[in-house]
Amino acid sequence: MSFHFPVRVYWEDTDAGGIVFYANYLKFFERARTEWLRHLGLQQQALKQETGGMFVVIDTQLKYHRPAQLDDMLEVSAIMQDKGRASLVIAQQAQRLEINGERTLLCEGSIRIGWVNVEKMKPERIPAQLLELFS
Amino acid sequence: MSFHFPVRVYWEDTDAGGIVFYANYLKFFERARTEWLRHLGLQQQALKQETGGMFVVIDTQLKYHRPAQLDDMLEVSAIMQDKGRASLVIAQQAQRLEINGERTLLCEGSIRIGWVNVEKMKPERIPAQLLELFS
Amino acid sequence: MSFHFPVRVYWEDTDAGGIVFYANYLKFFERARTEWLRHLGLQQQALKQETGGMFVVIDTQLKYHRPAQLDDMLEVSAIMQDKGRASLVIAQQAQRLEINGERTLLCEGSIRIGWVNVEKMKPERIPAQLLELFS
Amino acid sequence: MSFHFPVRVYWEDTDAGGIVFYANYLKFFERARTEWLRHLGLQQQALKQETGGMFVVIDTQLKYHRPAQLDDMLEVSAIMQDKGRASLVIAQQAQRLEINGERTLLCEGSIRIGWVNVEKMKPERIPAQLLELFS
Repeated sequence: MSFHFPVRVYWEDTDAGGIVFYANYLKFFERARTEWLRHLGLQQQALKQETGGMFVVIDTQLKYHRPAQLDDMLEVSAIMQDKGRASLVIAQQAQRLEINGERTLLCEGSIRIGWVNVEKMKPERIPAQLLELFS
Repeated sequence: MSFHFPVRVYWEDTDAGGIVFYANYLKFFERARTEWLRHLGLQQQALKQETGGMFVVIDTQLKYHRPAQLDDMLEVSAIMQDKGRASLVIAQQAQRLEINGERTLLCEGSIRIGWVNVEKMKPERIPAQLLELFS
Repeated sequence: MSFHFPVRVYWEDTDAGGIVFYANYLKFFERARTEWLRHLGLQQQALKQETGGMFVVIDTQLKYHRPAQLDDMLEVSAIMQDKGRASLVIAQQAQRLEINGERTLLCEGSIRIGWVNVEKMKPERIPAQLLELFS
Repeated sequence: MSFHFPVRVYWEDTDAGGIVFYANYLKFFERARTEWLRHLGLQQQALKQETGGMFVVIDTQLKYHRPAQLDDMLEVSAIMQDKGRASLVIAQQAQRLEINGERTLLCEGSIRIGWVNVEKMKPERIPAQLLELFS
């Protein structure tokens, strides 16, 4: 079951090529992951204060299919691709919502995130109550 | 009559001080101005193609009152402060929406924007039909 | 006596107008202030760990004269404009270094910074040994 | 033969985790690629005006090993990993320069770039004179 989140393209997101700067899809993907967590009842700031831990990104793989432009309306999806005890892999897509109701795939990727102890900046097992939320 | 637009604070917006990086309020303010224009029926990308012109920022003045943090929900306002034939001044505020329903002023400022011919990158009078939209 | 720091314009700095996104001059200005502090012997990360305090930006005023483009080489200056016990005002400029050796003023502004206690996020007097560095 | 480029970590690069925001390594990597091209005699803005084409990023793969912090001095490398007629793969690393002269690998990745006609936004063969520069 995938989560969907709308993202509008603003000036800040574009570059001199007239399109969305490719690094910014990582931002769009993260907004969707954050809202997914919030939808599941998790606030990352609160989580950090309670558990002393937080998610960090371990690796990212992105493919760019077509460019987005200023004023485009995107829909960013997130779905659990792989769930381990030390890390999760989230598959994500950014699609443009066209005026005729169709969607165009612009960018897709997978993001591996792990859990770290903030004080020690060391990897730890993902808290069980967090893992349960995703089942 | 002021326009209001919600902005959520994500990781991308914060810095190592644990708060929203101050330059990013200019992004938040611009999102609100862009949505205001859209609300009035204007798409900047389309506007550029039709008229060959676009708005550019001429000067900015910002005051930072309190910091925003990750996961904060902000409301950004925009209101016309001064309307000339060559430039407009927009007064803007970013307020945090507190859990108890109150608002806390975080940042306020005024943004002067002018109209330029994109080809020549030279200032021009703001098209009359644009000015009318704001009256 | 002013401090100067070179800044190259990369794709990340530009927007779909083909020019440097105006909010990014705040980044350029801060790089110059940071290198100025480093030149005076101060590392902000170390400073924070030693004193529990850090500089925060209180207000900013920027004027945009001409746009910078991809690959432009800028020189950013910083000079103390006003030195109080609770805040400092730094005057800054971004100039483009032209091929013929001339400089073109692109953006200028003044940035007021204050000192805060990181734990309490409250304003405090700027430590005396810091103030002395600027005299 | 790899190209190396220094990158200093500023406030703008960090996030509320106290470390460099992971998406920003794509910016650091691009600065190094851009300086590599400049070192080979290429200015991308000029290239675009002369040939009507530009490089675009097709896919990116990044692994994050350790975090960078404010004030860290990084060295970013770029080396040709694969050279085709339609796309190039550049292998890149960001290492931290430690006080004792050692280097710590923070992030590594590979970036595939292709050549597009700017007008049509369509892929084209990389101009021969460009390919020769890399041999």
